[in-house]
Amino acid sequence: MNARVREPEVLISEVGPRDGLQSVKATMPTAQKLRWIDALVASGLREIEVGSFVPARLLPQMADTAEVVRHALTHPGVTVMALVPNARGAESALRAGVHKLTIPVSASAAHSFANVRRTREEMIEEVRAIACLRDDIAPGVKIEAGISTAFGCSIQGEVKEDDVVWVASQCIAAGADEAGLSDSTGMANPAQVRRLFNKVRGAIGDKTGAAHMHNTRGLGLANCLAAYDVGVRTFDSSLGGLGGCPYAPGASGNVVTEDLVFMFEAMGVSTGVDLQRVIAAREALQAGLPGEPIYGMTPEAGLPKGWVQGVYAT
Amino acid sequence: MNARVREPEVLISEVGPRDGLQSVKATMPTAQKLRWIDALVASGLREIEVGSFVPARLLPQMADTAEVVRHALTHPGVTVMALVPNARGAESALRAGVHKLTIPVSASAAHSFANVRRTREEMIEEVRAIACLRDDIAPGVKIEAGISTAFGCSIQGEVKEDDVVWVASQCIAAGADEAGLSDSTGMANPAQVRRLFNKVRGAIGDKTGAAHMHNTRGLGLANCLAAYDVGVRTFDSSLGGLGGCPYAPGASGNVVTEDLVFMFEAMGVSTGVDLQRVIAAREALQAGLPGEPIYGMTPEAGLPKGWVQGVYAT
Repeated sequence: MNARVREPEVLISEVGPRDGLQSVKATMPTAQKLRWIDALVASGLREIEVGSFVPARLLPQMADTAEVVRHALTHPGVTVMALVPNARGAESALRAGVHKLTIPVSASAAHSFANVRRTREEMIEEVRAIACLRDDIAPGVKIEAGISTAFGCSIQGEVKEDDVVWVASQCIAAGADEAGLSDSTGMANPAQVRRLFNKVRGAIGDKTGAAHMHNTRGLGLANCLAAYDVGVRTFDSSLGGLGGCPYAPGASGNVVTEDLVFMFEAMGVSTGVDLQRVIAAREALQAGLPGEPIYGMTPEAGLPKGWVQGVYAT
Repeated sequence: MNARVREPEVLISEVGPRDGLQSVKATMPTAQKLRWIDALVASGLREIEVGSFVPARLLPQMADTAEVVRHALTHPGVTVMALVPNARGAESALRAGVHKLTIPVSASAAHSFANVRRTREEMIEEVRAIACLRDDIAPGVKIEAGISTAFGCSIQGEVKEDDVVWVASQCIAAGADEAGLSDSTGMANPAQVRRLFNKVRGAIGDKTGAAHMHNTRGLGLANCLAAYDVGVRTFDSSLGGLGGCPYAPGASGNVVTEDLVFMFEAMGVSTGVDLQRVIAAREALQAGLPGEPIYGMTPEAGLPKGWVQGVYAT
């Protein structure tokens, strides 16, 4: 360790292999997924959502998640996450050995019913059932509730901030270790991001989790900055912005990992991620999904003249 | 006036007809320019940089600027701006009747010489000469110094913050009414934006002018947010992000007016610009530059469900 070595100050949680792949029509072959995950790890990413445990007939892209988890677990120091929509998926995930589960819970009543055909109250009970399973099977595993439509809903429009705080608090009471806020619909703005994260922190303190922002209307990075300003230190993003927005073809959905890393590193906020290596990881993504459009302004423009990135602890 | 009528809190200064058109190869026919400017005005934009007074052999796209100025002046309440690189251009602009001049002055010594073959000191003397001309010919006209490469230079790399403060202060001492900061190269980050605007304000107070941000690496809106946070209230942007970045083909240069308006309006910060009308103005731009790529996430995704914009004073 020398004087320039710094511990990362923020955690970039890469969601491309789950959120990204789930949104595209093509299915990436397993071998390509593993190669892509290896490239993500090589760039310094320390948390990766590698898949979801859902019926293969619903999402064939995710049929190999258990195998992908097993491979990801061979990388020391990487937190291996998976999404689970219910207790059945959670049991599979826990038996596969994941370090962390994420459960989507809508803040919007209308979206909850449309998306999973269950009320918010029923989803909170699912969190409770999953937490019990976790206690039985693998007590060290962390559970995150991902509060979707936290900043607005494409079905009901406005989502009341009190509803978001209530759902987040209920998830924590039901046994989740943290609750993150997701701008599923790309409706968030920076003022709202600051206000809502502050309110949620007022209710659940340091169990407040990640900011999962979308770039649907171009505000992805501005919203991440706003979340950082009020103390959020975990940010979901996906390589190449993979993870489209179904109602806006061509518009990027998820925040682009490469641009997010550039923003923080340029600000002097260490991410632990090597910008050049994370840009290089696009090659593995593109190889596994030939012809699929990927996004990213920093990769396209290149690094600025004189760019020097900090040297981080490995 | 009713209770919902609000005065604009920020000024969006549209630079497309100058900065945008100057960057594309095609020349927009004068009649189309006028129609485009009319559409911009109809959306509520109150300041427009309509052209530059430069030799037509260098920039044929700007050959009709005097005519464009005359037309723009027929719109009451709109501040008509033009860029001038020197006293000769300034005299033409003043005689054409512009309300405001902008003079580009590089903070980077290397960029100044490469761009205009003059040192920064020589450009500051040009500002002084232009201010004298203005006092003689049209004392009501405002002069803005646009400090380019304020956040980094693609030739010399880092630009010292003290250099930026010095150039801005010298321009004010030479007679400029305000000095804005321009991220010409898309190298700015939010931490730097906050720090540098604070430093410049420390030196020249309320003569601190606009934030002119580029979206080259995707940080355009985040940087505008950062500038807003430290008190900046004037923002340059261009419709459709017109104004490419020469070294990154396909990458958007200027911040997209539509996305900037969306960000502020969604935050509850009134811009005076009607979002639907400014999106509609893209049609006039595209009609005048067929086939030219334009950008914008909000126009592509559409307005969020339940979107209601405030009603502004006209």
